[in-house]
Amino acid sequence: MINREWHLLSRPVGWPEVEDFALVEAPMPTPGEGQVLVRNRYLSVDPYMRGRMSAAKSYVAPFELGKVMQGGAVGEVVESRAEGIEVGDHVLHFLGWREYAAVDSAQAVKVGSAGSGDVPLSAYLGVLGMTGLTAYAGLLRTASFKEGDAVFVSGAAGAVGSQVGQIAKLKGASRVIGSAGSDEKVKLLVEEYGFDAAFNYRNGPVAEQLRAAAPDGIDVYFDNVGGDHLEAAIGSLNRDGRIAVCGMISVYNNTEPAPGPKNLARLIQTRGRIEGFLVGDHYDLQPQFVQEVGPWVASGALKHRETVVEGVENTLEAFLGVLRGDNIGKMVVKL
Amino acid sequence: MINREWHLLSRPVGWPEVEDFALVEAPMPTPGEGQVLVRNRYLSVDPYMRGRMSAAKSYVAPFELGKVMQGGAVGEVVESRAEGIEVGDHVLHFLGWREYAAVDSAQAVKVGSAGSGDVPLSAYLGVLGMTGLTAYAGLLRTASFKEGDAVFVSGAAGAVGSQVGQIAKLKGASRVIGSAGSDEKVKLLVEEYGFDAAFNYRNGPVAEQLRAAAPDGIDVYFDNVGGDHLEAAIGSLNRDGRIAVCGMISVYNNTEPAPGPKNLARLIQTRGRIEGFLVGDHYDLQPQFVQEVGPWVASGALKHRETVVEGVENTLEAFLGVLRGDNIGKMVVKL
Repeated sequence: MINREWHLLSRPVGWPEVEDFALVEAPMPTPGEGQVLVRNRYLSVDPYMRGRMSAAKSYVAPFELGKVMQGGAVGEVVESRAEGIEVGDHVLHFLGWREYAAVDSAQAVKVGSAGSGDVPLSAYLGVLGMTGLTAYAGLLRTASFKEGDAVFVSGAAGAVGSQVGQIAKLKGASRVIGSAGSDEKVKLLVEEYGFDAAFNYRNGPVAEQLRAAAPDGIDVYFDNVGGDHLEAAIGSLNRDGRIAVCGMISVYNNTEPAPGPKNLARLIQTRGRIEGFLVGDHYDLQPQFVQEVGPWVASGALKHRETVVEGVENTLEAFLGVLRGDNIGKMVVKL
Repeated sequence: MINREWHLLSRPVGWPEVEDFALVEAPMPTPGEGQVLVRNRYLSVDPYMRGRMSAAKSYVAPFELGKVMQGGAVGEVVESRAEGIEVGDHVLHFLGWREYAAVDSAQAVKVGSAGSGDVPLSAYLGVLGMTGLTAYAGLLRTASFKEGDAVFVSGAAGAVGSQVGQIAKLKGASRVIGSAGSDEKVKLLVEEYGFDAAFNYRNGPVAEQLRAAAPDGIDVYFDNVGGDHLEAAIGSLNRDGRIAVCGMISVYNNTEPAPGPKNLARLIQTRGRIEGFLVGDHYDLQPQFVQEVGPWVASGALKHRETVVEGVENTLEAFLGVLRGDNIGKMVVKL
């Protein structure tokens, strides 16, 4: 039996190239005592993975060269040497970028009822998983969202951004504005996700489009993008405004650092706050998150989309697509 | 009787020019019911005043063209039409840039015992006034300083900066680092104010000098300067670091906005926070501030310096000196 897995061969400089990676055939892993063998059904591909491809010290260790990469995955247990997990159970774990994985039971979280529940298995990589918690924690804790706030989110058609906007609306935002990179996505934001306003950042200067969409300013900005979006948000920030920095996808592939926002002095008059966060610091919110958001997902009040790419051999292309913004909603690879 | 007062004639573009201002002779003001006539003894000149010289909407109204400017002042009451304030009392008020002022009693705060106490009258414009409270509130509330933090402050020989560093030391900072614009000031920081390390930002790149002075990074940065100081501080920020933005004197006179820090994405991995503040939002801390800092001033544990310029006719030059960084400690004008 052969297990196919993705290796990092060289560290990308700027935009990742296909030559930096290889799909490698490896022996099927054998679960040790306390482990389960999981046949992965869905792999997660996420922008933060670009950071792990670089050698720079960061909040997670870099991927090792010549070894299999990691990432979120859900799959079916096909062999168990661990108590409490049976063959046929579905588990969420962190050994993605491969077909089969031997997972410590402590690192495997049982989800759903063998995939037969109301929520599809892939949702545990997205709306009810780390993606959803990222939106929830960043909006409520880091940005201190409160009822009546006007909220702007960039990358709004993405997996995290679309959740941010909808959670804000469901919790009483006065106005929710989103930006995205195509007219199709903008339409989706307004017509399907219920944003009050949205714009295509490729259609003109972000600052001007934001001012038109939020003439009374914004109280919260959820930043997935950085760059001119961040500068525009600072320019439209109301008194006591808060900016949660989740990601800066616009700068990840720059070889030379781009200049930062020119208007940071505005933080003084607005008493504004910019704060970075990582979902890993907020797992304590998980029970509250599932309790509040789960029913919205089940009832359809909170909508979510997936872009599904089929086949382990297309995992890299799916990842590159996330960096390009090809996806609408959460990007997953179905094996 | 003649009252000399400073008027703003035109709004400076870039660096203020002498021609933008005029020292004007006006009639002596007559106090109305509930007012006192104050002979100003000390005028305050502060960097934030540059903002009020522009027409741009800000946290305080712009100075009006052709009218007398405002600012902190302490003086002696020479005529009283208000209950509770006697001739001979000393009061702190906000009608500076002039020799005499008719002040509403509600806007006049009695200070000291007619100037005869342990603390000189000018201290109420500085170490025990708005300047000291700015340092105290920004460090303790905005930057959430706690014992054991490593603290970096720019403009460290200035009125606010020198207080920040000393208060941090007195409250148990693990290390206090300051930057200033001359070797003389650097010496003062280490030898008189007890900073653990200090550097002259004109002697080399700020980021390199900061890394050398704080090899284990910083937990708090108190920003008076902006620009490359802010970028360097973000680069040296430890996990959960906090930056309080008090001022950005390096950018106030730019006609074109300078590019911002290139490394804001570091806020994600550090979970860092940048937050602006204005002392006016923190007057509730005043009693706690006087109670804690007052004894340090009286005992000499907290040192402060003043640069005193004599004569109302030299007020503008004193203000320009603050913008250039000529002062050590609080700049005041003695009338």
